Amino acid sequence: MKTVNRQQILEVFDADSFTLLQKAGFIAYSQRRVQQPPVQHFLFAQADGDGCIKSAWLEGDRQFVVKVSTGFYRNAERGLASNQGLMMAFSAETGQPQALLLDEGWLTALRTALAGRIAAELCAPAEVQAIGIIGCGLQARLQLQQLKAVTACRQVWLWGRSEQALHALRRDAEADGFRVRVTQDAAQLAAHCRLIVTTTPSREPILQAADIRPGTHITAVGADADGKQELATELVAKADAIAVDALSQCTQYGEIATAYRQGLLASTPIVELGAALQQGAKVRGDAQQITLADLTGLAIQDVQMVKGVLAAL
Amino acid sequence: MKTVNRQQILEVFDADSFTLLQKAGFIAYSQRRVQQPPVQHFLFAQADGDGCIKSAWLEGDRQFVVKVSTGFYRNAERGLASNQGLMMAFSAETGQPQALLLDEGWLTALRTALAGRIAAELCAPAEVQAIGIIGCGLQARLQLQQLKAVTACRQVWLWGRSEQALHALRRDAEADGFRVRVTQDAAQLAAHCRLIVTTTPSREPILQAADIRPGTHITAVGADADGKQELATELVAKADAIAVDALSQCTQYGEIATAYRQGLLASTPIVELGAALQQGAKVRGDAQQITLADLTGLAIQDVQMVKGVLAAL
Repeated sequence: MKTVNRQQILEVFDADSFTLLQKAGFIAYSQRRVQQPPVQHFLFAQADGDGCIKSAWLEGDRQFVVKVSTGFYRNAERGLASNQGLMMAFSAETGQPQALLLDEGWLTALRTALAGRIAAELCAPAEVQAIGIIGCGLQARLQLQQLKAVTACRQVWLWGRSEQALHALRRDAEADGFRVRVTQDAAQLAAHCRLIVTTTPSREPILQAADIRPGTHITAVGADADGKQELATELVAKADAIAVDALSQCTQYGEIATAYRQGLLASTPIVELGAALQQGAKVRGDAQQITLADLTGLAIQDVQMVKGVLAAL
Repeated sequence: MKTVNRQQILEVFDADSFTLLQKAGFIAYSQRRVQQPPVQHFLFAQADGDGCIKSAWLEGDRQFVVKVSTGFYRNAERGLASNQGLMMAFSAETGQPQALLLDEGWLTALRTALAGRIAAELCAPAEVQAIGIIGCGLQARLQLQQLKAVTACRQVWLWGRSEQALHALRRDAEADGFRVRVTQDAAQLAAHCRLIVTTTPSREPILQAADIRPGTHITAVGADADGKQELATELVAKADAIAVDALSQCTQYGEIATAYRQGLLASTPIVELGAALQQGAKVRGDAQQITLADLTGLAIQDVQMVKGVLAAL
């Protein structure tokens, strides 16, 4: 079995070609060409942690992929990254293990950022005066980096609970070529930004319905399990159009789950990224619409990352 | 991350101490102290293969375990074992990968045989003139070996579709100290044997209701996915008492699933192994009863195997 480490993965990662692979993966998923069993979830309440196991096989591929990923939110106290994980590829012809990718959570982080890029391509308004990023972790940095490929805007507002983390993120965003404003008032951020990405594991809404102006797109990345929610239910209900990575996951435990369960989305168009990509259609109808993208993370995204890495090595 | 190979695992495997761990695991499972998300299943029809991902955490343990196992039934043509697989342990405190057990499916094979041993302990009649083994693979050998700890009987009938495989199994069973009869008529086997273990991935019943005499116990190991069935539905319905590893799995896709769905088990007592072990009660009521044990395989069994191996290394 081939073992690949984080360094090797980061060396072969190429955002543009991996984005194409991701798009092909979303399309295959929406065409029902992917075997992707329901995600396995764990809750490690005693350590403020959670974990999930995602696996998928794109029918016809020579390998299937299994991914274990965790978030332990006290890891920082130990000098460890919150998100850990690894991926494995197995032969779909003999079952033998083929590759172990010790990516330390990076493949998940990168493919999530690429999904944010794809969501922005389908949903963001043409004119963006400022980008808004909610949360100060690795995902905040990666999402911001990936948005450079879909908008010419280089003005960003950053929101975080910790002043220290906000300051560190500011330096990184400036190094990436952005003009930066920081705030601890999410409403202020929303007033200025038409392209917002939320990247926290929050269990209570950070953005309220009244905060959001017409013509705004929000990509919500954080909610990937029951109880997590970054946007107020009334804000979700206010969306004119919603893109999701997977209807089955997002309606169950994604950002839109609460609004969906309460029947508040009965007349809101909801489309899977793969379906929109296949049709070559934008999710956004006009410049004044409020659009949302709910990303819960799909195993097919992991499959496509592993495929990209193994092909490049 | 520590890597452990098959050889190291087989060296530290001790059937008696690992059986105690398995019993503790079944009890914890039935006490609802185990987080064990639903199994993920794959079907690789093009290669006559299937796969599953099982994971579990015994609450309070320092690690959780993820297992990937596959069965590819044309592997023999390539000189490969049908069953492949590996297990991994991750910290339940930080999420970091701790150990990779490249057991090539052996831990699954062994824990399945130990479950058969435990089922026989709870269900088999006191007097067994002959053991019957259906199927000629590795699991047939391991089940037979493990039964030596729970019965003094050393007479065995073997049934298989392939004369060659049957002949090879006969030699192994004789080397293990058994007096052996072989047959390709399952009814003949059932007529002589009061303790039968079925170990095939069959999709059509091998044993019929009319074949089974009073006072027989059957442990069915093969059915672990939709469509697999080794015992006729009427035979399952005829059982006086049934032991299962997990009610939720067995009623969904185990050996008893079809009879259960058809409402034929409404008045049959069905007990989980863990519940019977905790109560210290036998599943069998009297010497004339027909009993069944349906083993679909639980992730907690894998957890306990990994725990045993890591503690012994």
